[in-house]
Amino acid sequence: MSADVAIARARVEASFARQTVMETIGARLLSVAAGAVEIGLEITPRVSQQHGFVHAGIVATIADSAAGYAGLTLMPEGRGVLTAEFKINLMAPASGDRLVARGRVVKSGRLLTIAQAEVEAIEGDRTRTVALLTATLVAVENRQGVVD
Amino acid sequence: MSADVAIARARVEASFARQTVMETIGARLLSVAAGAVEIGLEITPRVSQQHGFVHAGIVATIADSAAGYAGLTLMPEGRGVLTAEFKINLMAPASGDRLVARGRVVKSGRLLTIAQAEVEAIEGDRTRTVALLTATLVAVENRQGVVD
Amino acid sequence: MSADVAIARARVEASFARQTVMETIGARLLSVAAGAVEIGLEITPRVSQQHGFVHAGIVATIADSAAGYAGLTLMPEGRGVLTAEFKINLMAPASGDRLVARGRVVKSGRLLTIAQAEVEAIEGDRTRTVALLTATLVAVENRQGVVD
Amino acid sequence: MSADVAIARARVEASFARQTVMETIGARLLSVAAGAVEIGLEITPRVSQQHGFVHAGIVATIADSAAGYAGLTLMPEGRGVLTAEFKINLMAPASGDRLVARGRVVKSGRLLTIAQAEVEAIEGDRTRTVALLTATLVAVENRQGVVD
Repeated sequence: MSADVAIARARVEASFARQTVMETIGARLLSVAAGAVEIGLEITPRVSQQHGFVHAGIVATIADSAAGYAGLTLMPEGRGVLTAEFKINLMAPASGDRLVARGRVVKSGRLLTIAQAEVEAIEGDRTRTVALLTATLVAVENRQGVVD
Repeated sequence: MSADVAIARARVEASFARQTVMETIGARLLSVAAGAVEIGLEITPRVSQQHGFVHAGIVATIADSAAGYAGLTLMPEGRGVLTAEFKINLMAPASGDRLVARGRVVKSGRLLTIAQAEVEAIEGDRTRTVALLTATLVAVENRQGVVD
Repeated sequence: MSADVAIARARVEASFARQTVMETIGARLLSVAAGAVEIGLEITPRVSQQHGFVHAGIVATIADSAAGYAGLTLMPEGRGVLTAEFKINLMAPASGDRLVARGRVVKSGRLLTIAQAEVEAIEGDRTRTVALLTATLVAVENRQGVVD
Repeated sequence: MSADVAIARARVEASFARQTVMETIGARLLSVAAGAVEIGLEITPRVSQQHGFVHAGIVATIADSAAGYAGLTLMPEGRGVLTAEFKINLMAPASGDRLVARGRVVKSGRLLTIAQAEVEAIEGDRTRTVALLTATLVAVENRQGVVD
């Protein structure tokens, strides 16, 4: 692991720890690389919609964070990212043992970054892709409270 | 309130009560009318991202449900709706006392329904629009576990 | 008409005249107000897809321009707008005599502007909504070639 | 080339030839494989927006068709596809000699198909990715005029 990746990892870990919603829904940070972040979620009733699947908004929550943190790994220190918008296609019901959202940067710009996340549902040894998210991230700097 | 609206309300209330995620995040159903549903969320640390705002995915969770249930109010009995995809613009940080997501049907079709939701943040007597979601809902019928 | 609206109109008209694609597809500027612009398109075979409807991309072309120019009417002089992304729902086949795209600003920001456009198809005295677009516009300044 | 691919190619070629808009904008079909279609566009003033770049809606036109035809290659005969919605991120100004839109199916379903298209701008021997589109396609059958 290079020094840069170690710094990015420490930065994402510290920020993730401040996302109290992640503890609420039962998500945790799985991996951090340059331009790529993975977040896992145990599938439990506390994140269910009415049919017993994980709610689309919760799928979006881990996908958006995976995409956003992937973007953050490529930002100079002192800059944070906010999601300006995202779009998510729910391709299959999100059920099984757990979800993994794999975020990666598609294009990193000074102002806007495009990132995607794919979400997989894992049940025993089977893996299915359940969602695909594309996000537009905006870099913010020197704005109170918005760093990393 | 007409008989139809009373039936739609009972249907949405029963379905909402099965969305255990709503209790997890602290959301509740505020109102149900034909083609229009409102969901409220108290802003507490349990739904926060790293800067103290409500996480975009949680904003999306109540917006998606408000849009989806607006769609459900117009569906014949025995049919459920699933979100095929949604897109959300986050226009301002979601902070304040509470959020209200107001969903409404834009176009109801036999197979696909388009619905939108606007999310407002309320702080004291100030109200700001913080997000706008557009969803494509797909009607499902006779599929095990997917009713209402 | 106020002086401001007159200036915005002149600005949008001059820019529209430089959009040679509009002549190619047969579109023209119908109206300009503060935060709202309308563009019309005659439905002819030159914009058809394989089933004889107007191609979704051409519907998007007039909708994106109506939304973008709506955003431009609220920008200080010397600033242009570029579309960072848009999403469009095609709600019904685009057929009839002509289309009208009605763009309006949802939220105007220093950096990002959110605008929407609704597209209607007109056939004789019947009008149907055929598409709904939401766009994120980014303000650009001092960039060569990108003014208005 | 397998018999199946030959049939898909003939089918897409025949449909593309009926898309008169493609001749209007100067686009042509470059390649057809199972689940993947490429469309090219010469960059000429007739597709320009006000800054001299290819209009976002025209970029969307070839991207949507590349994605839609990628979906069509996987459909049983007698079924057509319509775009229910798409979202496109414009990552860089579309300028240069020509554009190539590369569509591919992400998930093919009985009712809904998710497809993506990446658009590249080619100038001399340089290639840049300028746009990324995600579309939801709906399969239609036995509807007058909508086949392939």
